[in-house]
Amino acid sequence: MTGQSIIDRFTSLLGLKGVVTEKDDIAPWLTDWRGRYHGAAAAILAPASTQQVAAAVALASELGVPLVPQGGNTSMVGGATPPADGNALILSLRRMNRIRNLSPDDNLVICEAGVILSNLHEAAEAVGRRFPLSLGAKGSATIGGLISTNAGGTQVLRHGTMRALVEGIEAILPDGSIFDGLEALKKDNRGYDIKQLLIGAEGTLGIVTAASLRLVPAIAVRAVGWVGVRSPADALTLLRLVEAHLGESVEGFEIIADDGLGHVLSHIPGTRCPIGTRTPWHVLIEVDHADLSEPGPAERLERALTDAFEEGIAVDAAIAANEAQAEAFWRIRESISEAERAQGPALQYDISVPVSHMPAFMVEAATAVEREFPGTTASSFGHLGDGNVHFHVRAPQGTKDGAAWIAMQGQAINAFVHDAVVATGGSISAEHGIGQMKRAELGRLASPARIAALRAIKAAFDPKGIMNPGKLIPRPDES
Amino acid sequence: MTGQSIIDRFTSLLGLKGVVTEKDDIAPWLTDWRGRYHGAAAAILAPASTQQVAAAVALASELGVPLVPQGGNTSMVGGATPPADGNALILSLRRMNRIRNLSPDDNLVICEAGVILSNLHEAAEAVGRRFPLSLGAKGSATIGGLISTNAGGTQVLRHGTMRALVEGIEAILPDGSIFDGLEALKKDNRGYDIKQLLIGAEGTLGIVTAASLRLVPAIAVRAVGWVGVRSPADALTLLRLVEAHLGESVEGFEIIADDGLGHVLSHIPGTRCPIGTRTPWHVLIEVDHADLSEPGPAERLERALTDAFEEGIAVDAAIAANEAQAEAFWRIRESISEAERAQGPALQYDISVPVSHMPAFMVEAATAVEREFPGTTASSFGHLGDGNVHFHVRAPQGTKDGAAWIAMQGQAINAFVHDAVVATGGSISAEHGIGQMKRAELGRLASPARIAALRAIKAAFDPKGIMNPGKLIPRPDES
Repeated sequence: MTGQSIIDRFTSLLGLKGVVTEKDDIAPWLTDWRGRYHGAAAAILAPASTQQVAAAVALASELGVPLVPQGGNTSMVGGATPPADGNALILSLRRMNRIRNLSPDDNLVICEAGVILSNLHEAAEAVGRRFPLSLGAKGSATIGGLISTNAGGTQVLRHGTMRALVEGIEAILPDGSIFDGLEALKKDNRGYDIKQLLIGAEGTLGIVTAASLRLVPAIAVRAVGWVGVRSPADALTLLRLVEAHLGESVEGFEIIADDGLGHVLSHIPGTRCPIGTRTPWHVLIEVDHADLSEPGPAERLERALTDAFEEGIAVDAAIAANEAQAEAFWRIRESISEAERAQGPALQYDISVPVSHMPAFMVEAATAVEREFPGTTASSFGHLGDGNVHFHVRAPQGTKDGAAWIAMQGQAINAFVHDAVVATGGSISAEHGIGQMKRAELGRLASPARIAALRAIKAAFDPKGIMNPGKLIPRPDES
Repeated sequence: MTGQSIIDRFTSLLGLKGVVTEKDDIAPWLTDWRGRYHGAAAAILAPASTQQVAAAVALASELGVPLVPQGGNTSMVGGATPPADGNALILSLRRMNRIRNLSPDDNLVICEAGVILSNLHEAAEAVGRRFPLSLGAKGSATIGGLISTNAGGTQVLRHGTMRALVEGIEAILPDGSIFDGLEALKKDNRGYDIKQLLIGAEGTLGIVTAASLRLVPAIAVRAVGWVGVRSPADALTLLRLVEAHLGESVEGFEIIADDGLGHVLSHIPGTRCPIGTRTPWHVLIEVDHADLSEPGPAERLERALTDAFEEGIAVDAAIAANEAQAEAFWRIRESISEAERAQGPALQYDISVPVSHMPAFMVEAATAVEREFPGTTASSFGHLGDGNVHFHVRAPQGTKDGAAWIAMQGQAINAFVHDAVVATGGSISAEHGIGQMKRAELGRLASPARIAALRAIKAAFDPKGIMNPGKLIPRPDES
């Protein structure tokens, strides 16, 4: 069958609006947003309903045409970029952008896959609720993509990753059948949890078309604090102390190395250090209350920090006096990546280790990298309570050609960092998934039992291999 | 290969202590604890370590010998009873009963599969923590079985089912390979979540040998209240009101029909109604605090109930004045099943529906059953906040031979109740799993896409069909 006649078959199914073939319209979706992966596709399929997705997948299965599902195209690991061979079609879920049902009484919302995260935030706020997951790409990222990558963010400490917020899923399986699991049942033991399998599957087992998501009460009042500490170990002790005082109302607990703070102060206009003392490490804490009962979060955080001073854990501290200050504290945290980019070329790792190992890892892995690769500087920041480190290795000072440095050193540094992660029982992908970027490293480092299980599940669901080919599953030569 | 030579092979692997062949020692484990299912097995394998389990599974795979994993043998659905053909061996995990690591700082415990739930409770209490899942069989049920059935209980409202408490799993896959996923990582996106697949798999995909489990702070103080209401709808309104006042500290919210309460008062010595008025429905509420901060849970519950009276939701209410009264309140709830048995023969259903549909279901399904099967009386009680109903259909008054009534009417009533559950978007198994008992009903009622997915996963993991045969997956003639 020729390419054109394949497209004609899909057009007769989805209508002219449902098949995009103009080169200029397709081009932006052939490259990931960081510009690291490039693919080819003759068309973007854009179905408008679950039934249309089901029909499109059934036809793709019949014709053996691979499909690459796409939401906001904000993958950090090339997970939504089609292969270069041009055989695959992109399946965009962006037209499926309805909020089907919003029930504040039940703290539930049923969203289609193409709903953009910030639109969901607004819809929830309008009824006095919130959807407690957010990340930098919220203006583009879609619910389908967030589910398929089990997205995280800064609120995971309290509310969990996407997995903890998904109550039900509707999806199209690779044979075109509809898996109708939208019921939000808190207890349901009817065999293997297919929903859990689809969460984080990166579109390789089926296409998520809609989901039931959990909402939580809106924030009535928050307190944001900044604490200077001597070490990541002290930061972890501080976390346990703050949790003992404040329990589940601790919503954010971010650790930042002083050099990372320094880069923000150097490169991001209008930023200043929230405390008078420059300590080796810094902690950003957010405490949220859903009601206005006394004592409020600021008073309770202040009590906890008083204890932290008495125990010698905190060196200096500040609690934001108003919303503008609270936002200024958070702006520092959110500007680190931008500041690091301005500072010079760097390799960035999205990794996790058991929480109790994180303080040692942050210090020791940095030292080890700098020793092994002279001239580099390594530092980390991230979600201490989740064991999620954003670990950066910067090129030696004066490196002009970052791309050449990465081409020369990248693979060796990747392997060194990932080996250190595996040695401490951690994960080479905390939040971003595997996609294309980490596929070979997953193959190199995962246990044979894990890789065999991944391949067996993939083959069982998608025997023709048409769902997002080349993603997640290590190739035979990669393990 | 003869039966004896098969047993000899396992004995040379596991030693004499690792293979039980005495008929009298095997007999208790061939029948489920309710005496409804009977099987046969020539031996019980009792490995003492992960390596021994791996070796035994590898040998079983080589020889094509089916294995039936067993923990405490407390399945409610015949999930741990071997088939009657006698070809399978029982694989008992009870010798693997070590707590490998208990880390109160990290709120984590690593348990082997054979650890008995009440032993875990005691170990956690000894270090000022608790494991927040409990159920009637806690003195026998093991961690491996609780994971393999995704067990629930009365604390799910706050802490979730077993799935929410399992941070990591070690398991033996059907080829004898070790899946080492014990790391407790809060963020880990390395492909399909194999752990989630093993939770609730009822031993049909592999053998759980150990798990990392989440602990929570010990309860410092609790308040237990009893509220009389007019209807399940008012009970749900009360739940929302109590949650608005008390947030995540609401740990139990049980609803009981007045006739169920009446049976307890008639049959269980020493029980009395906690409130002066006999209302059509009753609610048992528990509020827990992990610290002694003021206001305490009793004062906060009282404020919430004052609002409930003002809004006309509560008819009468009592808050336990001391621990003895609190235990007396809970004893009523925990005695319902026993009282119902004393009342006469009944069919009991473990089902769930979306929370918002539960009030209507509790009333309408009971009416419909009584109309369809004249003489029966139906009533329900259970975990309102989880949408989990324990629905009972009692035989007509004066029925002498309960077994004969069940043989005559059971299948028709089962189908009627399950159809009503499916019509409201619910699950025919909320807590107990499928096992042997609900396999045919799952086949009759689940969507083709769900059944195909279950079968595909089973075939992918266990192509020889040696893991807990006859459980969970509907047979070809059952769908």
